[in-house]
Amino acid sequence: MNSALRTLKSIGREMEILEGTEALLHWDKSTFLPKKAAEQRSEQVAYISGLLHAKRTDPQFQKAVQQLRRRPKGLSFVEKRLVEEYTKKMNKWTKIPLSHVEEFSKVAALSFKAWERAREKNDFTMFAPYLEKIVQLKKKEAVYINPKGHPYEVLMDEFEEGMTIVKVEAVFAKLKPELMGILSKIKNSKRYKAQQPRTGNFPVETQKLITQDISRMILGENDCFCCVESVHPFTTTICPDDVRITTAYQEDPLFSFLSTAHECGHALYELGFGDQLRGTVLFDSPSFGLHESQSRFWENQVMKSREFWQYYYPFYRKHFPALSAVSADDFYFSLNQVRPSLIRIECDEVTYCLHIIIRYELERALLEGKIAVKELPQLWAAKYQVYLGVEPKNAVEGVLQDVHWSEGSFGYFPSYAIGTMYAATIFSKVQKHMPGVRGGDFGPIIQWLRKNIHQHGALYPAEEVVRKSCGKGLTADDFLAYLKKKYYGLYGV
Amino acid sequence: MNSALRTLKSIGREMEILEGTEALLHWDKSTFLPKKAAEQRSEQVAYISGLLHAKRTDPQFQKAVQQLRRRPKGLSFVEKRLVEEYTKKMNKWTKIPLSHVEEFSKVAALSFKAWERAREKNDFTMFAPYLEKIVQLKKKEAVYINPKGHPYEVLMDEFEEGMTIVKVEAVFAKLKPELMGILSKIKNSKRYKAQQPRTGNFPVETQKLITQDISRMILGENDCFCCVESVHPFTTTICPDDVRITTAYQEDPLFSFLSTAHECGHALYELGFGDQLRGTVLFDSPSFGLHESQSRFWENQVMKSREFWQYYYPFYRKHFPALSAVSADDFYFSLNQVRPSLIRIECDEVTYCLHIIIRYELERALLEGKIAVKELPQLWAAKYQVYLGVEPKNAVEGVLQDVHWSEGSFGYFPSYAIGTMYAATIFSKVQKHMPGVRGGDFGPIIQWLRKNIHQHGALYPAEEVVRKSCGKGLTADDFLAYLKKKYYGLYGV
Repeated sequence: MNSALRTLKSIGREMEILEGTEALLHWDKSTFLPKKAAEQRSEQVAYISGLLHAKRTDPQFQKAVQQLRRRPKGLSFVEKRLVEEYTKKMNKWTKIPLSHVEEFSKVAALSFKAWERAREKNDFTMFAPYLEKIVQLKKKEAVYINPKGHPYEVLMDEFEEGMTIVKVEAVFAKLKPELMGILSKIKNSKRYKAQQPRTGNFPVETQKLITQDISRMILGENDCFCCVESVHPFTTTICPDDVRITTAYQEDPLFSFLSTAHECGHALYELGFGDQLRGTVLFDSPSFGLHESQSRFWENQVMKSREFWQYYYPFYRKHFPALSAVSADDFYFSLNQVRPSLIRIECDEVTYCLHIIIRYELERALLEGKIAVKELPQLWAAKYQVYLGVEPKNAVEGVLQDVHWSEGSFGYFPSYAIGTMYAATIFSKVQKHMPGVRGGDFGPIIQWLRKNIHQHGALYPAEEVVRKSCGKGLTADDFLAYLKKKYYGLYGV
Repeated sequence: MNSALRTLKSIGREMEILEGTEALLHWDKSTFLPKKAAEQRSEQVAYISGLLHAKRTDPQFQKAVQQLRRRPKGLSFVEKRLVEEYTKKMNKWTKIPLSHVEEFSKVAALSFKAWERAREKNDFTMFAPYLEKIVQLKKKEAVYINPKGHPYEVLMDEFEEGMTIVKVEAVFAKLKPELMGILSKIKNSKRYKAQQPRTGNFPVETQKLITQDISRMILGENDCFCCVESVHPFTTTICPDDVRITTAYQEDPLFSFLSTAHECGHALYELGFGDQLRGTVLFDSPSFGLHESQSRFWENQVMKSREFWQYYYPFYRKHFPALSAVSADDFYFSLNQVRPSLIRIECDEVTYCLHIIIRYELERALLEGKIAVKELPQLWAAKYQVYLGVEPKNAVEGVLQDVHWSEGSFGYFPSYAIGTMYAATIFSKVQKHMPGVRGGDFGPIIQWLRKNIHQHGALYPAEEVVRKSCGKGLTADDFLAYLKKKYYGLYGV
């Protein structure tokens, strides 16, 4: 191996270890960290982040990447891709000055706390000054990375490499009226007007048993996985053979059920990257959208399907006496009820992308300077009124509901919708295996995902992975067709 | 603050963060780490250890310590002690070459694995070659640290700073015959001959409720504490406000009860170091023995006392129907039954130090080259026969039972006995508060420990802390008097 390649791999390996350590510190913060130690934990995270930043901007590493880029002869395909990927990342890492990274990290910590307090007090004005500062810093960051680019596009690139505003706009321009149309049709149906919320007693201990069963179904008996509780469910990877999800239990058992299915979809993906990519930056997903496609696929296309519940309902009902008088059909309907809601993470398949589009429109306008932070609550409420026909009574069920902005994650939201589109496109290729699910056989679906999506890691851009396996890139068509078929059927419209 | 002091404190703070991060990696390894990730975790630990070693041997840090040692003028008492403590530690850190640290770390990892496999197969010969290598490396380490010292004393100093073989010998020379005498007297009693093992069904869920209650009793409602399960119970500190214990559940509910009390004793100590010591190497215990005194004090002197069970038994029995026909007196007796056993961590107060003395005698002879690794099983069995009257049937219940030697922790065992002596001496000072325990009042005991032991951290050597508060240093007298009073009473001899 030539010495530049050795340097690249060895420093890359150090970065991987530091990232994993940082991930463990975060996982622990959300799961077991005693309350009083929160600030000390932030210091630990900041210290490890600092070490990581030093590695990322290590001149030795930069030199090695540049050398290999100039003389790629003799490199394997994976190694060439590795050099390309590091070149792109290094470009970002080195363009943002350390002073900015440090300032942002401090402001973000304060902003996150202000967001938490503002939620407690249900008072957006407590959070607004911090958000203003965050917006300013993110605008500055976009200029550091690419002074000629559109700031929103530059920031979105962090989550969805190569994605453009033009592409996102095209998809959303189609989605928005179509979704509003589907929703309106459903709302006018008889079944919609008669539908009732789920009620009953679903003990947490039984919910736990069911979530264990879900992870077993999706991941098998797995030596590389663990699941514990946290307030907000998430997935994290500490090292290639250590992928963790968390879950949370609410009164409605479908919250833990669907969120576990969602996180297991993420985990299955993380556990499926090709072995030849281990220890490199390519042992990862190429985009948040593609990652989200894997979680939403299991949550929606599989675990909310009629086939799945034909298989699973007898077992599920046996465990919850509250369901003894509920038929499989009624349960399936209740699970898929469309009900415009104020909270993104509790909404149905039909309205989900409208929640995303609202956030996208607002955050883009913020970054473009077209609206001010203080206008957000009012604009938020107005959009919810127009797109979904509901209106938040307060900031907690409105503009304060998501953590993203408090941490400066602008440009992240589109990935949720992009993932939803990819999931539907992927489903159009694998739905031939759904009859097997009636018998509890997930094997062919898992095999397809492993072969066509997971193993590639970040070897190819997200859209290329989808295009290779499904014959098309980002499109709203498959998703809209899927929704219409499923929900027009359900509501008899 | 002068610049050398600033350097000392800032690099000291970095060490603290790295130590905490390493502690979290270890805690997680014993609690939630997926099985397959064990090796990757070792690499993460090794990496962080390497960073820590670099800080410990940082020339800037060494220079600062040396400067401050030469010119201590203007330093506060705590700062002077800090400089002394770092001087001692630095002396060790810098004397062992990095190549040796790295070699030892690799060998120890292999040795630990070999020990685990040997336990699985119940075959000491699978572990012996690794142990030989470990012994050689530890001997070499002792020479690096102090070529003129007795190798065992040099290694023991790692755990029990300032302790000498002469002192330990003096205590053990008294303990061994006395304990064998007490044991023999008990074994000849009527009550001993009639005693029966505990039986009954003690559900784990109820045991969990009880362990929560114990931590609440000792630590109060505590925002700096958490408890989860692991195979072997332990206590660890991730940062000053994050002290964790683990516990394990067995059929016999006294295992989780006593081990939780033991670990809570450690945790109470860790949470009691004076605030003025935060962020320094003095925010710690001066010795493993003093630490062990705090755990053994709660496990034995408090939680195995008649006063405690007078208070607690009605509640305890209510939770375990298996005890409905067992009187408080009978339960108290069964809890304190003396029963020479093969396993150290499951033995009673009377025989405990005999287990320790066996290990001490063997490991000291190993280090002195007086015995060979291959002789260990036979010598182990012979000593158990003579001291305790029992004989292991195999290596797992004999020489393979403790993890210490596999990791090279030679010189650690005496600390368990030293802690046991300190606990009894401390008890002689606080037993006036035991009547309060009958009413569930632990306050005065906790206050005494905080004021006299905990708050000092590592400001003074362990024996000095005990001497200051109890008027005497290491002695077997209080312990032997405590045993005789309690156990002669119990067995009517």
